[in-house]
Amino acid sequence: MHNRQIVLSRRPERLPEPSDFELRAGEVPSPSDGEVLVKTLQLSIDPAMRGWVVDTPNYMEPVPVGSVMRSFGVARVERSRHPDYAAGDLVVGAPGWQEWAVLGESELYWRVAPEQAPLSAALGVLGITGLTAYVGMVEIGRPRAGETVVVSTAAGAVGSVAGQLAAIAGARVVGITGSDAKCRICLDDFGFDACLNYRDTPDLGAAIAEACPDGVDVYFDSVGGAMLDAVLEHANIGARIPICGTISQLPGHQATGPRVERRLLVQRALMHGFLATDHFHRAEELTGRLAEWLDAGRLRHREQIYDALASAPEALADVLAGRNLGKAVVRVAEPG
Amino acid sequence: MHNRQIVLSRRPERLPEPSDFELRAGEVPSPSDGEVLVKTLQLSIDPAMRGWVVDTPNYMEPVPVGSVMRSFGVARVERSRHPDYAAGDLVVGAPGWQEWAVLGESELYWRVAPEQAPLSAALGVLGITGLTAYVGMVEIGRPRAGETVVVSTAAGAVGSVAGQLAAIAGARVVGITGSDAKCRICLDDFGFDACLNYRDTPDLGAAIAEACPDGVDVYFDSVGGAMLDAVLEHANIGARIPICGTISQLPGHQATGPRVERRLLVQRALMHGFLATDHFHRAEELTGRLAEWLDAGRLRHREQIYDALASAPEALADVLAGRNLGKAVVRVAEPG
Repeated sequence: MHNRQIVLSRRPERLPEPSDFELRAGEVPSPSDGEVLVKTLQLSIDPAMRGWVVDTPNYMEPVPVGSVMRSFGVARVERSRHPDYAAGDLVVGAPGWQEWAVLGESELYWRVAPEQAPLSAALGVLGITGLTAYVGMVEIGRPRAGETVVVSTAAGAVGSVAGQLAAIAGARVVGITGSDAKCRICLDDFGFDACLNYRDTPDLGAAIAEACPDGVDVYFDSVGGAMLDAVLEHANIGARIPICGTISQLPGHQATGPRVERRLLVQRALMHGFLATDHFHRAEELTGRLAEWLDAGRLRHREQIYDALASAPEALADVLAGRNLGKAVVRVAEPG
Repeated sequence: MHNRQIVLSRRPERLPEPSDFELRAGEVPSPSDGEVLVKTLQLSIDPAMRGWVVDTPNYMEPVPVGSVMRSFGVARVERSRHPDYAAGDLVVGAPGWQEWAVLGESELYWRVAPEQAPLSAALGVLGITGLTAYVGMVEIGRPRAGETVVVSTAAGAVGSVAGQLAAIAGARVVGITGSDAKCRICLDDFGFDACLNYRDTPDLGAAIAEACPDGVDVYFDSVGGAMLDAVLEHANIGARIPICGTISQLPGHQATGPRVERRLLVQRALMHGFLATDHFHRAEELTGRLAEWLDAGRLRHREQIYDALASAPEALADVLAGRNLGKAVVRVAEPG
């Protein structure tokens, strides 16, 4: 039996492109004590992957050239030498871009309840993106009724959930996104109160001022850079800025910009970086809350499903170019 | 009866100098309903005053040229038309640089218990500087036993208390200050574990790395700028950076520097600006805790007392040049 794998064949010069990856036929590995063999069902395609393939210090080791691309995913345990897992269990973990993987304790994140929602939700609204939105918005942003919340990459998998969580808290939600079509989705599907297409907005600061006449209380930031500067100019006293991504910044390049410390002081404001990975141990608790809102119809989500392992590099390129809509998931095998 | 006052006679070009102020003989004012007439006993000289005398947006309105200089102070109520205050009450408020002042509700901060400590402590370790240290270190920094805490302007009124609060929490405390003499005080008087004289340190980043072999968990920042950049390079995962001042930044000038958002994300770190003024309503509770540590001998403090109202401009120049040691207080009148 073969194990189809996609390896990183070279370091991307800028954004990772399909030509930076290679399909390979590997062996199906065998689990040692404390490990499980899993079959990959679905893979999560995340903007964070851009930072994993470069050769610069980060919150995870760079993926070595020639190795299977790192990836979160949903997988089914096929053979277990781990006391807590049995064959048939569905888990969220880090199988990587391959059909079969051996996972140890640190790559097994949480168990999936298949009756809760379609499997792909375990990677999206009830998974990593949902966790990111929850921790950033509910726990760091802490929006209150009547406050104004601005969300970057608002039509995206994380931003769309983050904005809806702010609306559930009673806040006025203003999205920033990269096309009129995405703005429409934010307004019509996700119930945002206003949305700016930054590509079509010559003076983003003025547009934010107009869209947020009472200033900005929370800015859910996955972009950084000039967009962050523009929002910070309109931050209210006591503003909170959870930072879950810096997609405007080139990995490995230290950009300069306006210093923030005076602004943070004068506005008594908070910037706080966070990673969903630090909260995987709370996933069952937090996704349980998200599932209640989902069941109650208070939370909507979109997915873009790509078929077959081989489409993963293209899915990643789409995510980084903003061509996808909603959570990008690659379907590798059927659960049944 | 005259009311000696010191007015801001012009906007300083850089740091406020005694020549930017003028002594004037004014009238003793009369309180209206809801106000009290107070006699100023002692005035607090604070680095924040630098930001109050410039004509740029800030967290308080600029002091108008020709007006009495704004100042916190301890004062005695002489005549009251406020239901909660009676003649003889001692209060911390904002009398300004003058012998007599009329204060309304918003300029009366909290009551002083004269038996608790010498009056000047109500402006220092049990007053505004103590509150600043408490909120920044205990509530935002939240140091844990065994963590490494770096404190800027470490021998100063706020820094020295902040560092001792970190030590009380069981952290290892590293000060940064501007002279060997101040480093000695941090080590000998305030019990810091290590101290760097930044003026004598060509590569501050390397010195921080050496003084903090386990990285930096909390940075109590009253400086901003290049010092903040240097500490941020050595910030641990989960680091907290309370910001209580930006003395390295010219007021009204937006400096540029390395962008922080990627670093905050990768380290899951927090920067949080705060002002003691937002916490004056909790002063009795928080200074009560500080008073317990003071009584128990776990908290030491230094004061530099200047005599007579006329010395206030010189005291301010000393504070901003780092020539003073400990909390700068101007004694205007005897309490008796």
